[in-house]
Amino acid sequence: MTDPAETSSPALELRYGTPGLPPGPSNPVINAILAHRSYRHFLDRSLEPGALETIVAAASSAPSSSNMQTWSVVAVEDPGRKDRLATLAGNQGFIRQAPLFLCWIADLSRLERMGEAHQQRLAGLDYLESFMVALVDAALASQNALVAAESIGLGGVYVGGLRNRPKEVAAELNLPPKAFGAFGMAIGWPDPAARAEVKPRLPQSLVLHRETYGMAGEDAAVAGYDEVLAGFSEENGMGRADWTGRMLKRVAGPESLSGRHTMTETLRAMGFPLK
Amino acid sequence: MTDPAETSSPALELRYGTPGLPPGPSNPVINAILAHRSYRHFLDRSLEPGALETIVAAASSAPSSSNMQTWSVVAVEDPGRKDRLATLAGNQGFIRQAPLFLCWIADLSRLERMGEAHQQRLAGLDYLESFMVALVDAALASQNALVAAESIGLGGVYVGGLRNRPKEVAAELNLPPKAFGAFGMAIGWPDPAARAEVKPRLPQSLVLHRETYGMAGEDAAVAGYDEVLAGFSEENGMGRADWTGRMLKRVAGPESLSGRHTMTETLRAMGFPLK
Repeated sequence: MTDPAETSSPALELRYGTPGLPPGPSNPVINAILAHRSYRHFLDRSLEPGALETIVAAASSAPSSSNMQTWSVVAVEDPGRKDRLATLAGNQGFIRQAPLFLCWIADLSRLERMGEAHQQRLAGLDYLESFMVALVDAALASQNALVAAESIGLGGVYVGGLRNRPKEVAAELNLPPKAFGAFGMAIGWPDPAARAEVKPRLPQSLVLHRETYGMAGEDAAVAGYDEVLAGFSEENGMGRADWTGRMLKRVAGPESLSGRHTMTETLRAMGFPLK
Repeated sequence: MTDPAETSSPALELRYGTPGLPPGPSNPVINAILAHRSYRHFLDRSLEPGALETIVAAASSAPSSSNMQTWSVVAVEDPGRKDRLATLAGNQGFIRQAPLFLCWIADLSRLERMGEAHQQRLAGLDYLESFMVALVDAALASQNALVAAESIGLGGVYVGGLRNRPKEVAAELNLPPKAFGAFGMAIGWPDPAARAEVKPRLPQSLVLHRETYGMAGEDAAVAGYDEVLAGFSEENGMGRADWTGRMLKRVAGPESLSGRHTMTETLRAMGFPLK
């Protein structure tokens, strides 16, 4: 008899919504990462002392392009400010409920200030490449932060809605030019009464390519994923919408981007020429 | 007597190059994240079976904007292809040495193909916002992958040089339009003979802001970090260059961006109008 533990992994099965992946190496770090789910319902309870600093140390531990560290994070706990940011970010109530709302900043302003202090104009900051570096730096830092937060029992969710009205967000957070609120992250103690399941992702055949990018079998794999996600949504009381249908609506046109179709002009006005 | 374990954390001290942060929560996940270092010297040894799939499952477990999953990864193991990619990415030899070179793709092409299959033109993909979503999706996925790889004893390093010549990289990887090699990641078994230390990061006073963005004390904190990093560099045989000096050179102007100052035109040519 074969030991089931050697032929399947419950964590991988949940992650993809199907069995099939051979079991690989496993340890507490991998188990924690595979078990990620987004939480949008929080208890009325603060973080423990030192938790925020540890979460930020995890963020700082992420790689950074040329060690430029072109990110910052604004930790918002004030109820009034959370309320205003929630309104700006698509009026999402869980931002008000979470004890901590982290605003992750793509931040070229620190380097600019260093240049000014040394009477040097840093023209390299004006290029799209530098904005991309800052965005990726902020993303890597934030993901480390989320994994660390989850490891101590907290839960959270990214908030792309922070990009709906970037100038108002910058005003609320007192951001200088060349600092952009790239995304938010609501963090708190998950409410055990609310459901939060591991969401199945696209099968590896669609995202993992060997040696070169391939598209063979893509249509069938997408159709299979549509089935998996429709079943998952139905089980979780969200109706049986398939992934393809949702995606086609989500990027149908400028009107489907929640106001973010003006991002180029907005960023230019915020100090990123995007040359 | 106070227990030293309760008043300082060796992992945090290494991360910042100074004592001072109060100890916070600790567990194997946090310890693994805090201990990150970049490896650029690898043993001549392949990954274990199932490791790549587990690393990609970790990547897939990262949050994704609206579950769009606008990323892909091309896993390159072929020595000839690694050699050519190493040449394109700033001729960095460790890419040839690593058994695995992951190319992380900001990938809007999958959604575009879904639109085509349904005779729908997805104009939302043409906006800078959508490119940013893809870049952040790829970044979150890649960071989960790196943490997972490190947890099983592998080491790695990001390779921003993959953006030096994006069109040639796309040709080598057979990327379709709307797929962009955002960064590489060399992965392998660290060579214990080569030095790789935890690099100190900016103090939390510079990256963590409470309620609103603040700059008080910034000059002194940067000067302190210059000292810390100069000491670290000297100890590691890299000369006593300070951070400020390096940064001012790194973003001095278009000529300091390793060819990436043409990113806007390059991306437009690769199918990202960046409206």
